[in-house]
Amino acid sequence: MDDFKILGISGSPRKANTDFLLDLALQSAEEQTGIQTERIYLREKEIKYCSGCFKCFNENQNEYACQVWRDSMDEIYPKLKECHGLIIVTPVYFGSTTAQIKTFMDRTEPLLRYAQGQWKSALRNKVGGVITIGGNRNGGQETTIQSVHHFFLIHDMIVVGNPADSSPGCYLGAAATTYPQRGRVKDAAKEDELGIRASKMLGLRVAEVIKLVGNNS
Amino acid sequence: MDDFKILGISGSPRKANTDFLLDLALQSAEEQTGIQTERIYLREKEIKYCSGCFKCFNENQNEYACQVWRDSMDEIYPKLKECHGLIIVTPVYFGSTTAQIKTFMDRTEPLLRYAQGQWKSALRNKVGGVITIGGNRNGGQETTIQSVHHFFLIHDMIVVGNPADSSPGCYLGAAATTYPQRGRVKDAAKEDELGIRASKMLGLRVAEVIKLVGNNS
Amino acid sequence: MDDFKILGISGSPRKANTDFLLDLALQSAEEQTGIQTERIYLREKEIKYCSGCFKCFNENQNEYACQVWRDSMDEIYPKLKECHGLIIVTPVYFGSTTAQIKTFMDRTEPLLRYAQGQWKSALRNKVGGVITIGGNRNGGQETTIQSVHHFFLIHDMIVVGNPADSSPGCYLGAAATTYPQRGRVKDAAKEDELGIRASKMLGLRVAEVIKLVGNNS
Amino acid sequence: MDDFKILGISGSPRKANTDFLLDLALQSAEEQTGIQTERIYLREKEIKYCSGCFKCFNENQNEYACQVWRDSMDEIYPKLKECHGLIIVTPVYFGSTTAQIKTFMDRTEPLLRYAQGQWKSALRNKVGGVITIGGNRNGGQETTIQSVHHFFLIHDMIVVGNPADSSPGCYLGAAATTYPQRGRVKDAAKEDELGIRASKMLGLRVAEVIKLVGNNS
Repeated sequence: MDDFKILGISGSPRKANTDFLLDLALQSAEEQTGIQTERIYLREKEIKYCSGCFKCFNENQNEYACQVWRDSMDEIYPKLKECHGLIIVTPVYFGSTTAQIKTFMDRTEPLLRYAQGQWKSALRNKVGGVITIGGNRNGGQETTIQSVHHFFLIHDMIVVGNPADSSPGCYLGAAATTYPQRGRVKDAAKEDELGIRASKMLGLRVAEVIKLVGNNS
Repeated sequence: MDDFKILGISGSPRKANTDFLLDLALQSAEEQTGIQTERIYLREKEIKYCSGCFKCFNENQNEYACQVWRDSMDEIYPKLKECHGLIIVTPVYFGSTTAQIKTFMDRTEPLLRYAQGQWKSALRNKVGGVITIGGNRNGGQETTIQSVHHFFLIHDMIVVGNPADSSPGCYLGAAATTYPQRGRVKDAAKEDELGIRASKMLGLRVAEVIKLVGNNS
Repeated sequence: MDDFKILGISGSPRKANTDFLLDLALQSAEEQTGIQTERIYLREKEIKYCSGCFKCFNENQNEYACQVWRDSMDEIYPKLKECHGLIIVTPVYFGSTTAQIKTFMDRTEPLLRYAQGQWKSALRNKVGGVITIGGNRNGGQETTIQSVHHFFLIHDMIVVGNPADSSPGCYLGAAATTYPQRGRVKDAAKEDELGIRASKMLGLRVAEVIKLVGNNS
Repeated sequence: MDDFKILGISGSPRKANTDFLLDLALQSAEEQTGIQTERIYLREKEIKYCSGCFKCFNENQNEYACQVWRDSMDEIYPKLKECHGLIIVTPVYFGSTTAQIKTFMDRTEPLLRYAQGQWKSALRNKVGGVITIGGNRNGGQETTIQSVHHFFLIHDMIVVGNPADSSPGCYLGAAATTYPQRGRVKDAAKEDELGIRASKMLGLRVAEVIKLVGNNS
């Protein structure tokens, strides 16, 4: 029996639209494909900035992936290593992810191909998809998704977009908007049909490609 | 008296939504700032692919900017040289401009900093803005605009976005959509309030920055 | 026995550096993984611009994917449908692919999810990678690769980057440069060790993920 | 007499290559154009994440731009408001700026067009340029620059690239690399001639366009 898991990581400082969209994606994947899911909310974690010291490459990695900081990443690294797919969900902040997501991404340096120990290439061949929500209609959703794809490819992950049949809204991933409320309304995403549909589809797509790839990798 | 001109270049194969949006931009600029405008529709032109020969850099440019092809670019080069700002309008095709716009952009090689004669740096310090319309809501509008900004910066142009006060829709430029018709309806842009507003604003913004820059350059 | 094939498509107007890099990628894949390969040089083809008519979605597709033009795409469409992976190679022209590649990409509209007949979703789940070479060191290679990834994702393809162990040069794909010759020397790519290595790795990566995905899809 | 100022903001966690490149840019601008300069090193500051509360738009902004946090941004906001140009310098971290830069950018929300008081549109018409340095040759420099350009355009700033005459290296801004040392050597940028030249040129370009625009705005 397969035992695949998608890890969903939310980068919003607020408990609102992004959580809702992540739930849609993961619930669809669970219900329709039987895949397991887990959620991490970065706002509940304490993660320090990467200090750019490169000690994760040069020194002897073993128990700890990062040689410098003892913080929430210590519990996240093993979850990244064990999952089969990753869904990043973030509001658009200035055309890209929130700084919270960026801090998380920067701290995955110890999982790169350059590491030496058990953490080397920990994300290789895992499947990645992105959900994002912006306060303007074309307010950075696409560039935000591309920036996370870039992160995925640096980790030798496999990138998928949004194969919704007739109304993808965005091909690169799931793009939602709180327009015309511009993010000030906590539940605005619940009225964005396109974003809702796309988030579900994105969850299914990640699950589908995990199953294609997973048994062989 | 100032005698500034914006050149609008449309890359749609069809006489439809893009022309409508370009008109909005240029009319707003004309009416509210008194700037002159001119339109070029690439579908009425015959432009060959750049052959990548670099003869425009190495040989003696004089009358002709391109040393190889005698085609519609011969009438477009002087218009590019004399204008003070450029508005490119294109439907989104596969996340970027139409091939027609790309063919045009490739053929501006003789106007680069590497040229030797009268065409050298012909677009330097001119102001550029972009209008685009896609069949999906987040269907490549932003990446299309970025790709044209890249073209502008290669020519040492000055790039502006969309300063619409409260509902820009897209900050990078004017992003419209024919969704939910997905481009099949000739007049779909006329129902896209956000795209209409943004196109007008983009025209005004290009005119405004031309006036800031123009007298000094 | 597997019978997988990578289709390589070259978009250079010139028989030079891009062909060389494509050969490296495909030869590495053939020799080290036993995969089959085929090459298409767009400069040898006659491909008209997409006219944006949407007839490929609305009318009865059967023998012909495109309802309008009878040109070289008629021989390319079946090759796209039958391959298992796609490697696009292009020089960087103004921060993106050549117009020749763009014309080709625009004409794949009949293979989208919106088609009705045998050509619908013809590229779905195929694996895509990109090789590019620019005349400046950071002269648009990365944005060119992203623009082709966008094309891949619109077709529901699976995107891979460059997993070269210690010196990828570029994570998004294979990025080469003719700097400091800036493209004027036909063989400049032969002196770009990083580009050579990356092109080989890219070919291997596409083959590897085809094998992961291919048996299941 | 003009009294123009460029504000340089460095986002590196380390006192190394980025500082060196920023100095080159600002010194060139000072010496050759007489413009004033000022430097901010984010690693010396304490800046909290934007909490996405939108209080900066809805409530009465007056003394404080941000209604929530009292931290180093309180000293940075006035500097942003008074400068005439902005140079952002950052190492490439996962294809984009460091999280430190992203945290700073997210916290400029109170300077947007949506603000109500003295901070509204504080960056409008200021000139922006970017310097970046990556551990791989094509290791995200271009996408990093684009992500900061996006930030600039959201603030209605004016974007410039790199007009170095014959060897720009990167047209979008100044792109340097520590390759082949991949960032582990503190002084690697000092051996990157292209990055050095480009950083100087970028500083001059920002100063030049400030002077074009500045007297009129």
